[in-house]
Amino acid sequence: MKVVKFGGSSLADGEHFAQAIKIITADPQRRVVVTSAPGKRTANDTKVTDLLIKYAQQVIAGQPFQETVTQIIGRYTAIADYFNVPRTKLAPLAERLNELPNWHFPNNNYLLAAFKAHGERLNAQLMTIILQQLGYEARFVTPEQVGLRVTGTPNNASVTPEAYSLLDRFSFNDSELLIFPGFYGITLAGHLATFSRGGSDITGAILARGLHADLYENFTDVDAIYVANPAVVDHPQPIAKMTYREMRELSYAGFSVFHDEALIPAIQGNVPINVKNTQHPEKPGTLIVPDKNFQPADIVTGVVSGKHFAAIYLHKYLLNKETGFTLRILNILARHNVSYEHMPSGIDDITIILDKNQIDDQLVDTICNEIQEEINPDQLEWIDNYAITMVVGEGMRNRIGVINDILAPLAEDGIPVPIINQGASRISIMIGTYDRDADKAVRAIYHRFFAN
Amino acid sequence: MKVVKFGGSSLADGEHFAQAIKIITADPQRRVVVTSAPGKRTANDTKVTDLLIKYAQQVIAGQPFQETVTQIIGRYTAIADYFNVPRTKLAPLAERLNELPNWHFPNNNYLLAAFKAHGERLNAQLMTIILQQLGYEARFVTPEQVGLRVTGTPNNASVTPEAYSLLDRFSFNDSELLIFPGFYGITLAGHLATFSRGGSDITGAILARGLHADLYENFTDVDAIYVANPAVVDHPQPIAKMTYREMRELSYAGFSVFHDEALIPAIQGNVPINVKNTQHPEKPGTLIVPDKNFQPADIVTGVVSGKHFAAIYLHKYLLNKETGFTLRILNILARHNVSYEHMPSGIDDITIILDKNQIDDQLVDTICNEIQEEINPDQLEWIDNYAITMVVGEGMRNRIGVINDILAPLAEDGIPVPIINQGASRISIMIGTYDRDADKAVRAIYHRFFAN
Repeated sequence: MKVVKFGGSSLADGEHFAQAIKIITADPQRRVVVTSAPGKRTANDTKVTDLLIKYAQQVIAGQPFQETVTQIIGRYTAIADYFNVPRTKLAPLAERLNELPNWHFPNNNYLLAAFKAHGERLNAQLMTIILQQLGYEARFVTPEQVGLRVTGTPNNASVTPEAYSLLDRFSFNDSELLIFPGFYGITLAGHLATFSRGGSDITGAILARGLHADLYENFTDVDAIYVANPAVVDHPQPIAKMTYREMRELSYAGFSVFHDEALIPAIQGNVPINVKNTQHPEKPGTLIVPDKNFQPADIVTGVVSGKHFAAIYLHKYLLNKETGFTLRILNILARHNVSYEHMPSGIDDITIILDKNQIDDQLVDTICNEIQEEINPDQLEWIDNYAITMVVGEGMRNRIGVINDILAPLAEDGIPVPIINQGASRISIMIGTYDRDADKAVRAIYHRFFAN
Repeated sequence: MKVVKFGGSSLADGEHFAQAIKIITADPQRRVVVTSAPGKRTANDTKVTDLLIKYAQQVIAGQPFQETVTQIIGRYTAIADYFNVPRTKLAPLAERLNELPNWHFPNNNYLLAAFKAHGERLNAQLMTIILQQLGYEARFVTPEQVGLRVTGTPNNASVTPEAYSLLDRFSFNDSELLIFPGFYGITLAGHLATFSRGGSDITGAILARGLHADLYENFTDVDAIYVANPAVVDHPQPIAKMTYREMRELSYAGFSVFHDEALIPAIQGNVPINVKNTQHPEKPGTLIVPDKNFQPADIVTGVVSGKHFAAIYLHKYLLNKETGFTLRILNILARHNVSYEHMPSGIDDITIILDKNQIDDQLVDTICNEIQEEINPDQLEWIDNYAITMVVGEGMRNRIGVINDILAPLAEDGIPVPIINQGASRISIMIGTYDRDADKAVRAIYHRFFAN
């Protein structure tokens, strides 16, 4: 049995719906379908999720919102029209959308979550109607019905173990297609709460695990996951197969094709993931499989860089004799809810690498001041322009000299490498460069391993 | 003004004393002399410090000790005889040594410290007698007199800021030579307490700082500090000049020529250190200077490895999303008084490198069990056989491609490098190998930078 998930661009209009339905119905193993909200049809288009956010904000602000509602309903109507779905069948969807402002919400965060969730919900409902009209035995199933229980904040929820117990009890028959909205679950109190943005991937993975799928097919708008970002490297090679662990390491520094958090349920359930292109379902895409017994085809699987890093550099004579100094630094960071990425330490020096997305200038000042006061270093430097490049590959494990092949082309290109972190993971090497050199570094490493 | 310190082998017998006196009196700038206890005269000889420890242990155990005392006095008498010092002049030294068991000590640790300290103390006294007999204006000065106040445990003391205030008030005239025993200071309560073993280097550095010396000459039994350990590399090149910081990084992994803790007072007082050979005072030795405005002659200054490292490797999916997991690991270590050396971390992995000297098998078990319970990793591995090689050089700073020159010969020799830590310090790179490869790695790196 396969769980199939379609991204927003794959469900943006009638034509794309038709293509998705062709895919769903081409393989009788495809039994569970997870929908996203309709995405952009053209570059200047607005995603339905963004329209729903606008709708929620207008409701919260007490502003008129009817125009926005009309726009949203228009998107679903256009798809319905493509399949000649009678308007009466669509009426309950519009009605529900219009009713949302009258619901009771514990606070505006829950309101926002519930509004957002309807992009996926209405799309799943519409998909069910269309499939039924085409003669398929399709059933619209909601997180509410199966008990997809979540916890955490309303707009950044996470699945609970209870959800899996409840999914285990959910039964469906062999002939029916289940159509399930992505992106959200329900809290213990019965409120809607969404995963982080792009979270339909997560729903698909939860269902794949919870319903014991053999494969989780993730249909999106690219042919495959590539060895390097196509925006950086021209026509990079696609990755045919990689392990969960490789995907984790690559997504960390910026590979955003597959939602990071969506890996976990797949890993826990040992369900392979196939990332495929809705427009070219015949292409093999990228298969993400368990680590066990994996035979890597290449030494390097992927090279990726993220430019959003900064560092605090500390030098203090006899630093490593002061027991607990790392603890004190970590406590300062924890006090401000800042987590560190890496922390290479020397004898009298330590460099703390941070994700710039979680800090602003004022927080930097505060943290540096507190370190200065509590640790009293001889030197304290804030370095604002680091990029982290991850070179990942199960094939690198235990292979002597890979690091030389990675670093040699950088030296030839005159790229300074102030930071190297090898040894934490056995299947990746972290290279720290200045952000201006990050793309050059990725190209140099890519060409060393793939262009020859 | 120069502070001159002689090591134990440089003051082991009359002949060596004569050589030391020749050095002291050859330069009128050499005004403060710090003595060690007499060292070994032959390979099978016993150091006076070890005899004093034996003496202390016999006293503590209530065993007869007169034979040991006779042996100790014999060492000083032999030196005195070489210079025809009348026995009556030596009598107060023997008397003091014999009196020691009658002193009052707060506990046996203080007893041990006081006994040990007398190796240096009696040697300084004897040196003064000999210099006076030779017609020099020499004055025996003790830590008690100048107020060399220390704190900490009796056998591992550290200097207090107060000691420097008191040294500042200590006056001596231009014509006299001050002879000062190394290795110990006095506590606030007036008890003798020693520095860690080899601590006469520390005394010399404290006096160099406290008395505002222009140079601290450290006379020992080697011509210089070498780029690599002569036991590993044949005839390594001597280091003519290096910075305090380079010395710190090198001594960390095992360069033991100059006492690690002795660097700090020199750094604080900005006093250059000259490590020289007592037997070849005409040779330039190694000069250790402030970091500021230093012009490195070579790219690499030193390569050294230590084989006493182990690591705990942890893998857990989503490790880096668990805020505070590093804190929890560090708390477990802190609970057992174990400090970590390095902690390379990946996305879902962390490796904690530990000094094996501070842990035994049982403690390893306990710590691993606690980590398993509190962190619950998917994988936990204890790796027992790491060596750390430090490649150090101010000349490496901002130089592109040095890392390639370091790693290339290792790859050529088929040496696996499971750990690389670059970026903490700007003047060193840490290479982790398996202990069996450590010497081979040092030789390969040395020959790449120096033999060509």
